[in-house]
Amino acid sequence: MPDETRSRPLSPAIEELHEWWAEIRRLESIEALLSWDQETGMPASAAIGRSQQLSTVATLLHDRLTSDQLQRAIEKALQAEGTPLESAVALEARRRSGRALAIPRRLAGELAAAGAVGAASWQQARAENSFDRFQPALERMIRLKREQAAAIGAASGDLYDALLDEYEPETRAADLDRLFSHLESELSPRARALPVAPAAAVAGGAPAYPLERQREVGLRVVAALGFDPARGRIDASAHPFCITIGPDDVRFTWRADVHDLRPGLYGFLHEAGHALYEQGLPPDLFESPAGGAASLGLHESQSRLWENLVGRSPGFCRWLWAWLPEHLPVPFSTAEQLWAHVHEMARGAIRVDADQVTYDLHILARYRLERSLLSGDLEVGELIDAWHAVYADLLGVTPADANHGVLQDIHWAIGLFGYFPTYTLGNLAASQLFEAACAELGDLDAGFAGGEFAPLLGWLGERVHRLAATVSPAEVIVRATGRPLQADAFLRHVHELFEQMSEAVG
Amino acid sequence: MPDETRSRPLSPAIEELHEWWAEIRRLESIEALLSWDQETGMPASAAIGRSQQLSTVATLLHDRLTSDQLQRAIEKALQAEGTPLESAVALEARRRSGRALAIPRRLAGELAAAGAVGAASWQQARAENSFDRFQPALERMIRLKREQAAAIGAASGDLYDALLDEYEPETRAADLDRLFSHLESELSPRARALPVAPAAAVAGGAPAYPLERQREVGLRVVAALGFDPARGRIDASAHPFCITIGPDDVRFTWRADVHDLRPGLYGFLHEAGHALYEQGLPPDLFESPAGGAASLGLHESQSRLWENLVGRSPGFCRWLWAWLPEHLPVPFSTAEQLWAHVHEMARGAIRVDADQVTYDLHILARYRLERSLLSGDLEVGELIDAWHAVYADLLGVTPADANHGVLQDIHWAIGLFGYFPTYTLGNLAASQLFEAACAELGDLDAGFAGGEFAPLLGWLGERVHRLAATVSPAEVIVRATGRPLQADAFLRHVHELFEQMSEAVG
Repeated sequence: MPDETRSRPLSPAIEELHEWWAEIRRLESIEALLSWDQETGMPASAAIGRSQQLSTVATLLHDRLTSDQLQRAIEKALQAEGTPLESAVALEARRRSGRALAIPRRLAGELAAAGAVGAASWQQARAENSFDRFQPALERMIRLKREQAAAIGAASGDLYDALLDEYEPETRAADLDRLFSHLESELSPRARALPVAPAAAVAGGAPAYPLERQREVGLRVVAALGFDPARGRIDASAHPFCITIGPDDVRFTWRADVHDLRPGLYGFLHEAGHALYEQGLPPDLFESPAGGAASLGLHESQSRLWENLVGRSPGFCRWLWAWLPEHLPVPFSTAEQLWAHVHEMARGAIRVDADQVTYDLHILARYRLERSLLSGDLEVGELIDAWHAVYADLLGVTPADANHGVLQDIHWAIGLFGYFPTYTLGNLAASQLFEAACAELGDLDAGFAGGEFAPLLGWLGERVHRLAATVSPAEVIVRATGRPLQADAFLRHVHELFEQMSEAVG
Repeated sequence: MPDETRSRPLSPAIEELHEWWAEIRRLESIEALLSWDQETGMPASAAIGRSQQLSTVATLLHDRLTSDQLQRAIEKALQAEGTPLESAVALEARRRSGRALAIPRRLAGELAAAGAVGAASWQQARAENSFDRFQPALERMIRLKREQAAAIGAASGDLYDALLDEYEPETRAADLDRLFSHLESELSPRARALPVAPAAAVAGGAPAYPLERQREVGLRVVAALGFDPARGRIDASAHPFCITIGPDDVRFTWRADVHDLRPGLYGFLHEAGHALYEQGLPPDLFESPAGGAASLGLHESQSRLWENLVGRSPGFCRWLWAWLPEHLPVPFSTAEQLWAHVHEMARGAIRVDADQVTYDLHILARYRLERSLLSGDLEVGELIDAWHAVYADLLGVTPADANHGVLQDIHWAIGLFGYFPTYTLGNLAASQLFEAACAELGDLDAGFAGGEFAPLLGWLGERVHRLAATVSPAEVIVRATGRPLQADAFLRHVHELFEQMSEAVG
């Protein structure tokens, strides 16, 4: 396969397009810094000012994406007979610009401001464990998202597709309906065979895992994976995320539980997976329309791959087991016990605590609800009842309160509708990519046991990261694995885990 | 005196001007966040990307400040028969906009990028203790500043006035020449009677003052002064500064020495002085052209007042003395010994370590050198020799190396020419304001001894902070103290200190 991302100098038309795009990329970087700061350090009382700053940047971005000069540069680039890379750049510019052209400038600013206000309102509601506190902000956001989706439109006539396209180009709700139906039939019966998770872990005794020690462990792990700390940073935040502020500035955040090793450790692995993708994007395309990740689903494939398929592998557990006691007390006498500990399965109410068998049922719940909210079939005032019904149906559990139910995720508060399904697409892609890597590279598990992760990172860098958005997400998967994205590798993986854990319990 | 800042609703013309100005203010807030992050957390390798982001914001700001719509809004506001507040708003908008109109858009972006690159180059030069490493960046910056000054122009024909006006409106180099000549004759003979400071403090033994404990002390002090931590934050950085990111987001930074209590403590007090001014500005004018500080000199008056006239007062030392041992070991058996410790005097090579007798001679040295660099009388290649000559002349000391000489300040690296004199103007204003406050409020020192700082903060809030830039800096001083800014109060203060310390030594 020819190396398309750096084969030769770019044509003048593409160079010109890149020049116009550079300012867009810098405004996106600034937007990223405003968001990072909002979650990591900004005083809470500054939320209104921040929402105004974000709104200002959003309207500036909108102006740039819709400018006549950019439109002319895109047209020129499309007309030039370019390489596949150059065509991809021009097409991605047209896609992004087209989404902006479809919506009014005012709406772009309002959406950004509503996101910042929504985040603050959601945090307040969480603090009070009260959905009522959040309801007005959510209603306003849904009104704006419906307006946005209607303005963008979709060939299918389905409002949801207009939003989904932002995160997962080329995927449609009709595809997701089929996929989730298949997953539900495979996963829900197994989920219902699992024990119910305790309503809320009651933390007892002295903190067994001090945060500073957990951070040391996390840093040691991500350094071994290949995260370059000189080109990024790691901070604490209430809601872990990864964000790129510049080609040499990839940041992620984490949170930990002093009574449980797993949330902090696997949070580190998950976000580092995102960060490795971002650090692996081609630096010379940073200011190109095609220089970012191919899609959010592909992004999530990287985080889930490192979190679940590497970080929960027997080899990784053996490696971790060998040096973890240098940092923390570990109440397990074998690496196998550690492995079983990080694979504990239960059906619970909280998505981010879910095991690999139940996780995608949480996504399905959100997918169903957000489709209904957007279509207008479901009012925000009915959301709690609907949430309970869908959780009873899929998992047979009832959230103890608002914080364990509808208030558990920030996504809707900040306008991320059409985003949740990318988590499931990521899980599927992670398994399919990992199978392909193992088929090509041989026994990776033995390497993991020795702390060797470079072969896998190299393979992912070559097959996924380096391509950025110069090919479609579907095409990335085909090139890397030889076939389109399917659920089979993922289902093989979770079914095997389910069997192993059932035997261990039985 | 009528309360001009909130007496009545603003006229439609001013409301319209404020609407235009709001985006400028938000872009300035974004610029502030980019700078804060650059100094507190950004990975060093991201410096180029950050310079591009800052350059993008600078050109956007330039576009807004020079837009036809803004010009029309300013004209309308100037023509309207407004209150004194409204006239001040319109005039300040015209001054700010006029400075931007004078320079090309390209230059605005280049200056911002050169500042970010200059900061990185200066940090590298500091790490290598090598002026050669910094010279090219400084030469480029001076070329740009000369271009900027020539484009702005000055009635006096003096390039320096064009730059000084940005920080200290209405003050001219001719005024400073007279002032510094007076200060030199008063201060230099006394400075030369002081012992020479050790070339570099050789840190010995275990760290006596752990950073975390020093931070506790600093937080306790600034909370007592009246800094509202819910409307700001405090971080560590190599070079302490205060910056405003929003009306409820005033941040400052500090650094400390584990072997010496003073740099950290008085750094906290100094930056908190700036922060109290910013937190005291009228929130309803945040997005007004006249909503910021009246001048940098006035800003520095606040930091120096809290640092030196409050923080080094006998009363403050008694208050500190009473509770400091709860946090840190203090090797003094009386509050008076602590007082003497924080007033130790010596002539040294480092500005930020200077006592109150020698400090303004350091400023004079920079003032002379930067005037010569800008006028072209001095080449950057001759700067080290010139630095040595002026230090020999004013203080009779020779810097041990580049880091203790020309590389000690970041100002020139980031383009701050015409900025240093505001430190001296601030020292003068601090003493004059403090004398006036004491004359009106009575014995403040007794209050300080009891940890009572609210009367002084209230007085400053009413007389200085609340006015923002709705009156000129000179007028702020006249209203607060009954007379124009003069050197007499400052000289009385330092001469008295000099006598006291000479007696203590003698």
